Amino acid sequence: MASAALICDSEPWKDLKEHVNAIEKKHLRDLMNDVERCQLMMVYDISFGIYRCQYRDRWDTFGLFTARVRLDTIGKLLKLAEVAAQLRQKIDMMYNGDHINSTENRSVLHIALRAPRDKVICSDGKNVVPDVWYVLDKIKEFSERVRSGSWVGATGKALKDVVAIGIGGSFLGPLFVHNALQTDPEAADCARGRQLRFLANVDPVDVARNISGLNPETTLVVVVSKTFTTAETMLNARTMREWISSALGTQAVAKHMVAVSTNLMVNLYFSSQNKWTRLGEKSWSVWYSTSDLYHAIDVAVVSDHFMISSVLVEKFGIDPANTFAFWDWVGGRYSVCSAVGVLPLSLQYGFPIVEKFLNGASNIDNHFYSASFERNLPVLLGLLSVWNVTFLGYPARAILPYSQALEKFAPHIQQVSMESNGKGVSIDGIPLPFETGEIDFGEPGTNGQHSFYQLIHQGRVVPCDFIGSIKSQQPIYLKGEVVSNHDELMSNFFAQPDALAYGKSPEQLLQDSVPDHLVPHKTFSGNRPSLSLLLPSLDAYNIGKLLAIYEHRIAVEGFIWGINSFDQWGVELGKVLASQVRKQLHLSHTKREPVQGFNFSTTTLLTRYLEVEPGTPSDSTMLPRV
Amino acid sequence: MASAALICDSEPWKDLKEHVNAIEKKHLRDLMNDVERCQLMMVYDISFGIYRCQYRDRWDTFGLFTARVRLDTIGKLLKLAEVAAQLRQKIDMMYNGDHINSTENRSVLHIALRAPRDKVICSDGKNVVPDVWYVLDKIKEFSERVRSGSWVGATGKALKDVVAIGIGGSFLGPLFVHNALQTDPEAADCARGRQLRFLANVDPVDVARNISGLNPETTLVVVVSKTFTTAETMLNARTMREWISSALGTQAVAKHMVAVSTNLMVNLYFSSQNKWTRLGEKSWSVWYSTSDLYHAIDVAVVSDHFMISSVLVEKFGIDPANTFAFWDWVGGRYSVCSAVGVLPLSLQYGFPIVEKFLNGASNIDNHFYSASFERNLPVLLGLLSVWNVTFLGYPARAILPYSQALEKFAPHIQQVSMESNGKGVSIDGIPLPFETGEIDFGEPGTNGQHSFYQLIHQGRVVPCDFIGSIKSQQPIYLKGEVVSNHDELMSNFFAQPDALAYGKSPEQLLQDSVPDHLVPHKTFSGNRPSLSLLLPSLDAYNIGKLLAIYEHRIAVEGFIWGINSFDQWGVELGKVLASQVRKQLHLSHTKREPVQGFNFSTTTLLTRYLEVEPGTPSDSTMLPRV
Repeated sequence: MASAALICDSEPWKDLKEHVNAIEKKHLRDLMNDVERCQLMMVYDISFGIYRCQYRDRWDTFGLFTARVRLDTIGKLLKLAEVAAQLRQKIDMMYNGDHINSTENRSVLHIALRAPRDKVICSDGKNVVPDVWYVLDKIKEFSERVRSGSWVGATGKALKDVVAIGIGGSFLGPLFVHNALQTDPEAADCARGRQLRFLANVDPVDVARNISGLNPETTLVVVVSKTFTTAETMLNARTMREWISSALGTQAVAKHMVAVSTNLMVNLYFSSQNKWTRLGEKSWSVWYSTSDLYHAIDVAVVSDHFMISSVLVEKFGIDPANTFAFWDWVGGRYSVCSAVGVLPLSLQYGFPIVEKFLNGASNIDNHFYSASFERNLPVLLGLLSVWNVTFLGYPARAILPYSQALEKFAPHIQQVSMESNGKGVSIDGIPLPFETGEIDFGEPGTNGQHSFYQLIHQGRVVPCDFIGSIKSQQPIYLKGEVVSNHDELMSNFFAQPDALAYGKSPEQLLQDSVPDHLVPHKTFSGNRPSLSLLLPSLDAYNIGKLLAIYEHRIAVEGFIWGINSFDQWGVELGKVLASQVRKQLHLSHTKREPVQGFNFSTTTLLTRYLEVEPGTPSDSTMLPRV
Repeated sequence: MASAALICDSEPWKDLKEHVNAIEKKHLRDLMNDVERCQLMMVYDISFGIYRCQYRDRWDTFGLFTARVRLDTIGKLLKLAEVAAQLRQKIDMMYNGDHINSTENRSVLHIALRAPRDKVICSDGKNVVPDVWYVLDKIKEFSERVRSGSWVGATGKALKDVVAIGIGGSFLGPLFVHNALQTDPEAADCARGRQLRFLANVDPVDVARNISGLNPETTLVVVVSKTFTTAETMLNARTMREWISSALGTQAVAKHMVAVSTNLMVNLYFSSQNKWTRLGEKSWSVWYSTSDLYHAIDVAVVSDHFMISSVLVEKFGIDPANTFAFWDWVGGRYSVCSAVGVLPLSLQYGFPIVEKFLNGASNIDNHFYSASFERNLPVLLGLLSVWNVTFLGYPARAILPYSQALEKFAPHIQQVSMESNGKGVSIDGIPLPFETGEIDFGEPGTNGQHSFYQLIHQGRVVPCDFIGSIKSQQPIYLKGEVVSNHDELMSNFFAQPDALAYGKSPEQLLQDSVPDHLVPHKTFSGNRPSLSLLLPSLDAYNIGKLLAIYEHRIAVEGFIWGINSFDQWGVELGKVLASQVRKQLHLSHTKREPVQGFNFSTTTLLTRYLEVEPGTPSDSTMLPRV
C-alpha cells in the first residue's frame, strides 16, 4: 500500500530500543534515589513550570511518575515525539480541524465541544463553535424546562426520571460522569428527587432492570445514536417506545422521548407565527453547520426561525424540535462532551454543573495545546505509556482510582483506549511490526487490592495508574479513630506505588525472621512502574480535567505509533456476521428452516439453541413483568 | 530452596513447546474444517459423554472451544495433565482435604460448602459437612425470621434492607450472584420489597452511597471478615455502627448488626432455661469443628445448648447468637458458598433460592471429580487456558457474558483468577521461568462490542470466553420485529467466535469492492481463539454451575503450572506500607510532625496532601450528609 515510513525505522526509536538495556540493569528502587530525576517526574497540568516545590499552594492536578526511566530517557522519548513522530504538527493538525481521521475523511474536534463561546475552531474552513453553543443553549433551555416542571409528560406530570439509551461511548462516557458526580455535594443537591439511568445492552434483561420502579408518566427517554441506526440502541428505543405508548398511548411518545443524533438526511422547517412549516428534505452534507444552513437557504434569518431534523428521528415519532445535534467530527468514544453526555447530565444535575465539567476539560485542552512537551501532562503520560508498552513490552495497564466515585472511569477509558489504539496497521495501511494499544482494566482502590493486586505485585508486570483526590466528596470522621476514613483510603494510595517499585527482598524477609520455606513466597521483586495522579478534589471541574488528560494521552500514544486512533473498522465484521445469524434465527423461527451456511461448530450450537428457544410470537408484544 | 522439579522440565511440556510450531502453521479457519476435531471440542458438563448430537434434549452446560488446536494437541495437553502435573492426584488431594495450601498449611474445601447433608468430606480427619449444615440451618432459620418480620429492629420495624460489609471475595462473589439473580423471575418474586447493598471500599463515598435512601430502623448490617480485623471492613463496620447508634442508640446495634467470621479466639456459652452462660474463652484451634466442641467440653449435649462466638465480634457489640461461622479451609475468593454469600443472599431471596445455587455448584463439583479428563469441562477449560497463556503466549483473557445479569461475573472471576494464579514461584518456592496467571477482564456483550472489541479483532490476540443462555430471564417480543430482543442479543453471541476465528482477508474485501486504500484497515487477520459456553437458562442453579466451572478451571491451571493457587502473600506488602502512611498522617495531623521516612517522591506527594487536607477533628464524629 502506502510507502510512508514506520516510526520503528526512525533513529530515535532505535536509540530507545538500545537504551532499554541500560534501564534493564537498573532497579527502580535505585532510580528512585536520583532526586533530580524524580523532580523531573513530577508535573503539574498548568503550563508555567515543572513542579519544584514552589507552587504548592495551587490546587491543580499533580502527576508523579514512578517510571523505569533515567534522567536521559525522557530526553530520548521527547526526541521520538518531536523529531520522529512529529507530535507537535499532529496536535496542531487536530486543533486546526484537519481530517486526521483519514480513513473516514473527518476532522477530530472533540476539543470544540468544550471551547468557550468566543473561540474559533474550524472544520473545513468553518468555525464550529457557534454550532456547539447553539446546541448547548438549546440543551440548557430544554433541561431547565424539564427540571422546573414547565415541560410535562402526557398526563401533565413533571418528568423526574431519565433513561438514556445509547451504547459504547454514548453509554460509558455519560455513565462515568454521572457516577462521579453522584455524591459531589453540589451536584447531589441539584439532582435531589431525580434519577438518571442508562440502557445500553440489547439484552432484554437490561430493559427490565431499567424500567423496574419507573413510571412512564414521569419518565423521559433520551435516544442517543449518531446515525439513528445502531442496532442495539434502536431496538431498545423501540422497546421503550412500546413501554411508553402501551401505558400512555402513542401520542405520548413525543412528550416522553427525545433524540441525540447527527442529521444525515434532514427535514428543513421554517417558523412563522409560532407554527413550523416543512420546507423539504435535504442531505445533511449540504447543511454542514447551522450557520451554513442560513446561507444555503439564502435568507436573512435569526436562529430560532429555522429548524432541521433527522428524517429517521421524525419517522421514529420524536418531535423534531426535541432533537439535539452533534457532528461527524465527534467520535462516539469522545462524545460525552457533546449532547450525548450533556443532555442527560443536564437533565439530572442542571446545565451549570455540566458547564463546569466542560470547563475542566477545556482547561486541559489549553494545557495540552500550549504547554511545552516536557511540562505537558498528557504528552508525558502518553510517552511513558509508549515506553512501557513498546519498549519495556508490558501489554496491559491498570487504572486504579482510589475513589468509589470513579467506579466507571476504568470501563470508560478501557473503551477510549482500546478502541482508539487497538490497531494492527499504520495510518497509511502498513502492517505494524510492533504491538500498539495496551489492554486497559481496573477497579477502584482499595477494592482492587483484595482482588487482582496479587498478580500485579508477584505475577506479571502491569504498569498502574493510581488516581486519588486530596479532598473527599463525603468525608467521614469517627471519634477515636487514628485517621479519617478518607485518610485511611489515601494511606493505600500513597503506599502502593512504593510497594510496587521497591518490593521486598529475601534478605529483608530473613531479617524479619520469616521462616525459610516462606521466603520465596513472600518475596516481592519490585521494579514495577506506576503513575500517581493527585487531584485537588472530585468536583465537576476536576472530573472534566481527568477525562481530557486521558483522552489526550491516548491520542498522543496513537500519534507516536503512527496509527489512526479515531476510526474503528474492527467492529464491523462481527456486525455483518450477526446479521446472518439474525436472518437464520428469523427463518428458523418463522419457516422452520434448518441452520445452513455456517461451519460445523456454529451450526451445532445454533441448532441446539433453536431446539429449545421458543421462538418469536411475531404477532404479539411482550414486555418484562417487573 | 526446594529441589522439586518444575513442570517446564517435563517431557510433555517440551513436546507441547515443539508442537507450537505445527500449530503456528495452521490458520484457525482451516482447523475449523476438521469435523472430528470440532466434535472433540464440544463438551457437556455431564459425565456420560462427549457431545455427539445424541443428547440434544438435555439442558446442560454446553462448551464449545474455537481453540487453536489440532486433534492431537488435546492428547498432548492431557498427557501434560496426567503424567507431568499429576492432575488426578492433585484433585484427589483437594477433595480429600489434604493441606494443599501448603504455605498456609490449610485444606482447600470450598466443595464442602455445597455438599449434600449426607456427604462425608474430611479436613484433618474430621467430617466438616455437619458443621457446614449447622451454619446453613442457622442461616435458614435466621433469614426466615428476618424476612417474615418476626425478627425486628430496635423500634419494632421489620428489617427489609441489608447492607453487607466485606471486601475482596467477601464482596465480589456475593455481588455477582446478587446481580445475576436480580431479574430471575423466581428470585425476583422472593425479593419483592427488599434491598441488598454491598459496602466494600473504605472510601467514605462508598458509605455515603450505601446509606443513601436507607433508614437505620429498617436496615440490617452484615459484617463479613474472616478474622474480624480486615482494615477496610472493620472501619466500615464501625462507621455503620455509628450510623445506627447515632440514630437509634447504642443498644440498637445488637438488633441491627450481625457477623460472618471465623472464630479465632472464642467465647463458649452454655444454655440453660433459655439463658446463656459464658463458660470461658478458648482458642478456636481447640474447637476446630462444632462436633469437636462437644467432645472437648466432655458432656453429652444437643447442638443448641452450646454456643461459641468470636471474642472480637462480641467486643464489637454484636450478639454472639448472631455470628455465622466459616472456616480457615475456605479461601476468601472461594467463600461465596459459605455464610459470606449465603447469609446476605438468603436475607434477600430466601434460603430455598440460595440452596438451588449451592446445588448447581455441587453438580459441577461432582462432574469435576468424576468425569474423565477428556470429557471434563473445568479440566479442558483449564488445559486450553494453559495452552493459550503459556504455549501460545497470550497474556490476557476476556470474559464476555452475553447477559446483563452476569454484569459482575468478570470482576469476580478477575479476582478469583488473578489472586489465585498471579504467582511468581512454584508451590515449592522455586522462581518460575515462565509466566503463570493471565490478566482477566471483561464486560457484558453486546456492550463490549462497542468498547474494546476493536482491539481484540484487529489489535492484540486476547482469547475470549463467550457466555450465553438459551432462555432469557426477561424475554421481550415486539410485534413486527424480525427477531426477539434475546435473539438479537444472541445473534452477536453466535457471530463473534467466527469473526475472530475466520477474519476477513484482503482478497475478500477486494471482492466486496472495498477501495484499495481502505483494504488494510478493514482486514481482519482472524486466527483468534475463543470459548463458547451456552447455558440453558440463568436461574440460581445454573449460576451456581457457572461459578464452579470457573473456580475449578482456575484450580486446574494452577495445578498444571505447579503453583499454590490458594495463598495470596502478594497483598501483604501494600498493607504494611499503608500502615506507615497511616501513622504518618496521624502524627502530622495531630502533632504537626513533618513527613519522614519516605523517599523523595512520596514525601513530596504526602506533603502536598497534608498541606491541603484539613485533618481529623479527632474529638468529633461526622457522617455523610445524604
